[in-house]
Amino acid sequence: MQVASRMEAITPFYVMELLARAKQLEAQGRDIIHMEIGEPDFTTPQPIIDAGVAYIKAGHVKYTPAAGLPELRQKIADYYWQRYRVTVPIQRIFITPGATGAFLLALGVSLNSGDEVLLSDPCYPCNENFIHLFDAKVKHVPVYADTAYQLSADLLQQHWQALTRAILIASPSNPTGTIIQAAELEKCIHFVNTRQGLLYSDEIYHGLEYEPGVTSALAFSDQVFVINSFSKYFGMTGWRVGWLIVPEAYSPATEKLAQNIFISTCSQSQYAALAAFDEQTLAELEKRRQDFSLKRDFLYAHLLRLGFNIPVKPAGAFYIYADCSQFSNDSQQFAQQLLETEGLAVTPGKDFGYNEHEKYLRFAYTGSMENISAGMQRLERFISSKQTS
Amino acid sequence: MQVASRMEAITPFYVMELLARAKQLEAQGRDIIHMEIGEPDFTTPQPIIDAGVAYIKAGHVKYTPAAGLPELRQKIADYYWQRYRVTVPIQRIFITPGATGAFLLALGVSLNSGDEVLLSDPCYPCNENFIHLFDAKVKHVPVYADTAYQLSADLLQQHWQALTRAILIASPSNPTGTIIQAAELEKCIHFVNTRQGLLYSDEIYHGLEYEPGVTSALAFSDQVFVINSFSKYFGMTGWRVGWLIVPEAYSPATEKLAQNIFISTCSQSQYAALAAFDEQTLAELEKRRQDFSLKRDFLYAHLLRLGFNIPVKPAGAFYIYADCSQFSNDSQQFAQQLLETEGLAVTPGKDFGYNEHEKYLRFAYTGSMENISAGMQRLERFISSKQTS
Repeated sequence: MQVASRMEAITPFYVMELLARAKQLEAQGRDIIHMEIGEPDFTTPQPIIDAGVAYIKAGHVKYTPAAGLPELRQKIADYYWQRYRVTVPIQRIFITPGATGAFLLALGVSLNSGDEVLLSDPCYPCNENFIHLFDAKVKHVPVYADTAYQLSADLLQQHWQALTRAILIASPSNPTGTIIQAAELEKCIHFVNTRQGLLYSDEIYHGLEYEPGVTSALAFSDQVFVINSFSKYFGMTGWRVGWLIVPEAYSPATEKLAQNIFISTCSQSQYAALAAFDEQTLAELEKRRQDFSLKRDFLYAHLLRLGFNIPVKPAGAFYIYADCSQFSNDSQQFAQQLLETEGLAVTPGKDFGYNEHEKYLRFAYTGSMENISAGMQRLERFISSKQTS
Repeated sequence: MQVASRMEAITPFYVMELLARAKQLEAQGRDIIHMEIGEPDFTTPQPIIDAGVAYIKAGHVKYTPAAGLPELRQKIADYYWQRYRVTVPIQRIFITPGATGAFLLALGVSLNSGDEVLLSDPCYPCNENFIHLFDAKVKHVPVYADTAYQLSADLLQQHWQALTRAILIASPSNPTGTIIQAAELEKCIHFVNTRQGLLYSDEIYHGLEYEPGVTSALAFSDQVFVINSFSKYFGMTGWRVGWLIVPEAYSPATEKLAQNIFISTCSQSQYAALAAFDEQTLAELEKRRQDFSLKRDFLYAHLLRLGFNIPVKPAGAFYIYADCSQFSNDSQQFAQQLLETEGLAVTPGKDFGYNEHEKYLRFAYTGSMENISAGMQRLERFISSKQTS
């Protein structure tokens, strides 16, 4: 019995091994500080919880339409108007089981096997693995500080080839936390349009931004795919609800595919998400955003002080991708030792691509300030001991 | 901008047009009886609702492990022992967003593009469309009353060819409600094993059975993929939670794919499903099963009395696939007229394949007995008026 060949191209999350070891250590009584996990420790905002509970208690947890609850699609359309001054007809909006469901639909309706997609390296590995799922090809474009670790129109010009059909931009980015500037995003969209290509814009960290300049690709074109989610900014990770916006020409195919591969997205999560745009929820989310902003500043300052190199200050999401090459030429080994000796878990660069990954560590500031602060003390002690040994 | 070529092969649900027309008529004030919908009107059992609500209220709706909650996987393993006397290690059990998620994983880890899969015709159209999603090929095997509308070892012998790699069996079947006999299932598994092929066993209607003889493919082999779900028997449609059991060799790849394409299944649905195996829940489900059994008997008797031909008495699920060729040689037109003149919605055979589909209508007995009874009165009036006109 043979595993499908696409599975060779799909990489596991290397951090899982580290996480398994962390859990082993915890089971032995060790106190572990987790800065490897991309899930905030905030609870879901209360109005969302209340809406979900009320819906379930009413007792009729039934399928919704495949494209999602019309009233939720409408609220998302309203949000695009309020936030970005962009009009999106609800026919182009599909509710999905998280951003992963949105990627499944977007790539399923638009990529043929053999098509090539340009991705920044580093990038979030799942995004790349969806491309492999459909037997399409990934072309990594190494990105550096000069473009804030984002693709640029110049890079597209250099790397676009005969089989290239699409690009994927994630801003704010996981793992770098950097954003693509609006003018550059517009240029990229223009470039892709001239090549009759597609753009997938991963906007799942929108809202979690601590500098101005975050723009939706929809601000420049209605011929793009936009992936978003209630997981990160809205604090609904475990609920698994997100959305996809498609160019109008793809709406019928997207609906057909959603009918077949989802039937519909989890109903109580959709009804709960109706409360995501309430004034009370948004006020709570703004408080959290400010809190994340403080944590970013704190972590950024500490990592710099300890001697890490962070050429571009992260502007969003909840990650810092720090160059640790002054301490080690093998970030995976560094992360393993840090876990073993100090009980601090961080993610090695290997999970995010091939471009100098051995130089980098990703720190997630998803825990409490006390937690992050204690983590920095452990990191400092670890580095001191390395330097004296 | 071109839609991916796989989307040409993926069919829409034709019943959606009919459903849209039914809703239009309802908006105009017409009273419509729905016998086209594969979703029971029962609510989710109370212990499951309570478990879901308690989990959400606790406030920590976070990601679970990609393979699912270990305690839910364990309960499923226990259930296989209690119900089928089969031992399934939890490493082979994956919690998924409904049976659709289970199909995504099963086919994603095992089918290469170009592989051919044998399917009965008629069959449930989504199953086929998952095969197209991965650019694999569907080969329809027309099935008739002689095999209870199921595949058989003889049919496999006739249709298996060089590119054939797998078969899919759904028992009890949608749309026919028929089951494959245990001895025949065993023969099919033996046949597939001798060809180094794969078997996908769709067991989502297990539990909803009104005759003896329903067996899991796992009773005969641990080298099969079994797809199941909490949707139908356990009354959890909108919750979107199901499971997949894979041969042990596929566990690592399945876990890797689940990490990437789901992150995890909706957490509150998993915690709610923990109560699905409670004594109180199972007692309620047994009552419902008996209720479905009465509805099946009632609908079956009425359709026969009205002159429909149903060569194999359905033994499970909640569908009767009735031959209406004595009234019409175009079941789609029959269904449209039935909706327009009598306000009774049923699904034409076209949604389930190519094999004499114009002869068949699918009746779902998911509504109340009063509803079904009223539907039969309307059907009788419609047929009388056709015969006198």
